[in-house]
Amino acid sequence: MRGVLAVLGLLGFGAQGEEAVWEIGPRSLAPPAAASAALREAVAQTPTPALAEWASVQPRTAEEWRALGASFAGAPDLDAMASAAGVSIEADTIADVAVYRVMPAAGAKPPHEEHIFLYVHGGAYVFGGGPAAVSEAVVISAMAGIPSVAIDYRMPPDHPFPAAVDDTEAVYRQLLETREPSTIAIGGTSAGGGLTLAAVHRFKAVGLPVPGALYLGTPWADLTDASDSLHTNEGIDRILVTYDGMLASAAKLYAGEAEPTHALISPVYGDFTGFPPTYLVTGTRDMLLSDTARVHRKLRVAGVVADLNVYEGLSHAEYAFLVGSPEYQQTYGELAQFLATHLR
Amino acid sequence: MRGVLAVLGLLGFGAQGEEAVWEIGPRSLAPPAAASAALREAVAQTPTPALAEWASVQPRTAEEWRALGASFAGAPDLDAMASAAGVSIEADTIADVAVYRVMPAAGAKPPHEEHIFLYVHGGAYVFGGGPAAVSEAVVISAMAGIPSVAIDYRMPPDHPFPAAVDDTEAVYRQLLETREPSTIAIGGTSAGGGLTLAAVHRFKAVGLPVPGALYLGTPWADLTDASDSLHTNEGIDRILVTYDGMLASAAKLYAGEAEPTHALISPVYGDFTGFPPTYLVTGTRDMLLSDTARVHRKLRVAGVVADLNVYEGLSHAEYAFLVGSPEYQQTYGELAQFLATHLR
Repeated sequence: MRGVLAVLGLLGFGAQGEEAVWEIGPRSLAPPAAASAALREAVAQTPTPALAEWASVQPRTAEEWRALGASFAGAPDLDAMASAAGVSIEADTIADVAVYRVMPAAGAKPPHEEHIFLYVHGGAYVFGGGPAAVSEAVVISAMAGIPSVAIDYRMPPDHPFPAAVDDTEAVYRQLLETREPSTIAIGGTSAGGGLTLAAVHRFKAVGLPVPGALYLGTPWADLTDASDSLHTNEGIDRILVTYDGMLASAAKLYAGEAEPTHALISPVYGDFTGFPPTYLVTGTRDMLLSDTARVHRKLRVAGVVADLNVYEGLSHAEYAFLVGSPEYQQTYGELAQFLATHLR
Repeated sequence: MRGVLAVLGLLGFGAQGEEAVWEIGPRSLAPPAAASAALREAVAQTPTPALAEWASVQPRTAEEWRALGASFAGAPDLDAMASAAGVSIEADTIADVAVYRVMPAAGAKPPHEEHIFLYVHGGAYVFGGGPAAVSEAVVISAMAGIPSVAIDYRMPPDHPFPAAVDDTEAVYRQLLETREPSTIAIGGTSAGGGLTLAAVHRFKAVGLPVPGALYLGTPWADLTDASDSLHTNEGIDRILVTYDGMLASAAKLYAGEAEPTHALISPVYGDFTGFPPTYLVTGTRDMLLSDTARVHRKLRVAGVVADLNVYEGLSHAEYAFLVGSPEYQQTYGELAQFLATHLR
């Protein structure tokens, strides 16, 4: 082994004792040759991510946040979405929290007759509310044959932490009035994955039973900028592009007066003992690769069943965007298998 | 979702129709803040990897390869290693192939009384032979309480592909004379992980039963330079540093006259149907992150039990080098659990 070790470059180095910051030179990067054709083509059609431009997006006031949100494309057409996916979508409230109920048109598929997927959307804790809050839940309900409830939780600028966690707890508590925790899965992508983890930390703290399974799509589990892939994949993740700018600003806005290392804000810092079986997805170009891998390690060290899946060349949450791609089919197809295995 | 999608940058782009090669600018990279203290400190004490210097290592003749090998640190002291780990190490031959037999000093630990770990070493298919071939097997035997046989397979420059696969098959075939395949695990790190996969492809092709479990430590599963992390983590993986240079040269040397996409040379291109339960390890800075993730995906799509683990901030195979670190303890501790679960 020592021979190998030497050739691999571990020996003979030694800038002892100080934190070495590396200066990494410029490079050319081709599209990921071994990704699916759909992903490779999508990357090939994307110009080099404009790092400085993305880093300059730093809303500071409630008005600036609202203006940024208003600049995005409009809300999805729920009727068209429901019809295309073969589900029904209904706006409702549970425990005074706005939700959308999703039901497969053919009804729940075995073994999910008595199961439910509690979905929490992504969008950096600031965006993705309203009708957009149900989009990924529609995919999950359609592919797994499971009814969903998508929570349109309160968000900044009006409602920073802990409003999102409070709303998720309120809906979960209400569901527990009529069903066993083992019949409920909770999950979401990005901030939705982080909120899923924060909610389970909260359930444990207030003495609620944990649900039967979790889905963490590239969870934003650390809002403190400590994850290495935020930096190694900066400018390489074509979705998030850089932490500086919108993400850093959103982290600050969401935390409000609270410490960003609080386990209900950056749930990777919590205790994962007693968590339910958890399915995780990320990609090699994902700026939240580290968040996802770190959560997976914490779960495994705590003895939890945790299933990590990493897609070649995939940026943040692209499995959700590349509808019908192999990355999309595998992510939701295997989530369906996971739910069928672990919900009771 | 569309609102989120827009802010995330997927819309409004469109350099249609040509392969966009991105020019990624220079950056500063701090040590991975959320890695273990042991790993963070090791990275902090490493100067910026010398990319150009590593890329210039391109042996071309048998003499140059031998000179490179001879320049490395000497062979390990097997007596000292055995004594420190609490195992015995014995040189032997099986089916005319040189091997080392490793036995825990206290004997095999339940449930491994009748089990064996068949170990194939790493070193880019050119290095790591002789006494070095047993090093990681010693760790596995000690931590899992399982007897090992480490194969000192033939290598280039004298013996290119398929000698390594032939030797592994010969030893496995001999073991099958006296034991059930379900009692045998096979595995290794880097080229050892790739050779493990190639061997199982070979077993299937010649009608041998597959073993009971596999260990793939950051397997070199694609020798064609197609994996994205070879490029995204170039200069960031402090162990491999760059594909240009020694790795590209070793790939060419090992393949010899054969096509590098041959499934026994680049096993990711093979058919994974019927593979046994497989445990995989890599890191976020690993240049073989993509090789590992791609193999994991292929296994899962083929319906194989496959357990992927990704360590924060870890370069290629560092779990093996950082003896006693959390990365080392978790990698081999969880491998021990995996073997106890899946060997019969």
